[in-house]
Amino acid sequence: MSFAATVCTLYPDMFPGPLGISLAGRARDEGKWSIDTVQIRDFATDKHRTVDDTPAGGGAGMVLKVDVLARAIDHARENGPADRPVIAMTPRGKPLTQARVRELADGPGVILLCGRFEGYDERIFAGRAVEEVCIGDIVLSGGEPAALMLLDACIRLLPGVMGAASSGDEESFESGLLEYPQYTRPTQWEGATIPEVLRSGDHGKIAAWRKQQAVDHTRSRRPDLWERYCDARGLSASDAQRGK
Amino acid sequence: MSFAATVCTLYPDMFPGPLGISLAGRARDEGKWSIDTVQIRDFATDKHRTVDDTPAGGGAGMVLKVDVLARAIDHARENGPADRPVIAMTPRGKPLTQARVRELADGPGVILLCGRFEGYDERIFAGRAVEEVCIGDIVLSGGEPAALMLLDACIRLLPGVMGAASSGDEESFESGLLEYPQYTRPTQWEGATIPEVLRSGDHGKIAAWRKQQAVDHTRSRRPDLWERYCDARGLSASDAQRGK
Repeated sequence: MSFAATVCTLYPDMFPGPLGISLAGRARDEGKWSIDTVQIRDFATDKHRTVDDTPAGGGAGMVLKVDVLARAIDHARENGPADRPVIAMTPRGKPLTQARVRELADGPGVILLCGRFEGYDERIFAGRAVEEVCIGDIVLSGGEPAALMLLDACIRLLPGVMGAASSGDEESFESGLLEYPQYTRPTQWEGATIPEVLRSGDHGKIAAWRKQQAVDHTRSRRPDLWERYCDARGLSASDAQRGK
Repeated sequence: MSFAATVCTLYPDMFPGPLGISLAGRARDEGKWSIDTVQIRDFATDKHRTVDDTPAGGGAGMVLKVDVLARAIDHARENGPADRPVIAMTPRGKPLTQARVRELADGPGVILLCGRFEGYDERIFAGRAVEEVCIGDIVLSGGEPAALMLLDACIRLLPGVMGAASSGDEESFESGLLEYPQYTRPTQWEGATIPEVLRSGDHGKIAAWRKQQAVDHTRSRRPDLWERYCDARGLSASDAQRGK
């Protein structure tokens, strides 16, 4: 049973897009995941195929109609594996985490809802148990590029997609720390040298150096992740700084 | 002078992808922005066109070679507007913000670097003044889907791309708060009604309700944004809760 993605969108031509190429594309060819799209406009009921309307209470832009969205979601639910979560891409949502990506990749698939214009009629979220998810604190022209990112993150975790070489255990966010810096040949490049410890052959020293680098990097660049890392381990900031 | 994007990637076929369609696609047809790609592999020098090598100090995966990356970036710099920032998509980077997107959109364009495998040789960042940027705390199979997101966010802000109707001022992240909820017809849907205040016609009340909704929503869903919002305004949490 492979991971089944259904994307409800006004622009079905955007899919699979980059996911038809490289790692994700090969995995799809091998049946490890599938994607289909639902054109939201097909669920409008008037002759103009209207999907949006002006905001109640006034204001700029247009809002996607709750009745049209609900029919599109119902159609997606009826035409795919049962119990797939429905996720709307929206800057108002909860930030997507690697932990949630892992849960999704372990499940039957996902139904994604991509908005355009000013957004969704709020009633859709409770009305169809839609999870609101945000990827990055930036505003897009629509949810489609964010949907591609979410799917890419899931697909690489599906069984057999990445080689055994890349277990993902040491990657950014998996351990709660950002990854340590990487280097490869040439040893000298424009006056910059690969750190000596990495050329020492001393695996204990190398592991300790990498851990400290990951700690320092996370602390300086992502104080939010650093704080969560310390909290989760019951560490004081000073203990944790020493990489304990 | 239009916004010029150059993407250094091992998968040039992923571009423009979704950006060739809809809002971004029309804007490109109208000359408001342009995109070209640099195939990183073209800058390998051996007969196998090698772009990566094993990590110094050991470990899983492969690291993109600094000399190859540098040549690809230099080529992109020499073949486009001067002074474009070079941005690498990486989970180790600083989270991309809407403020940074606005700066980028106001500039001559951007050179984007998309990694695959375990990542980049660290020396590229200082060696070519590369800014490391992260979109979302998730791990991708490569930087390409993140690059598409960054570009989409920039393109919609370019002059003349969005209609005047959508100024963006009331959007999530622009004000420091998440956007208030939106509703549109029908007034009744499956027992859920549009909040009465939005049907009152009282613009003062509507504005106050929306502000309070934005505050409540941000506070409960994004304590991080909420804290920043209060700090930036010198508000105590209790003042700010009352929407002052």
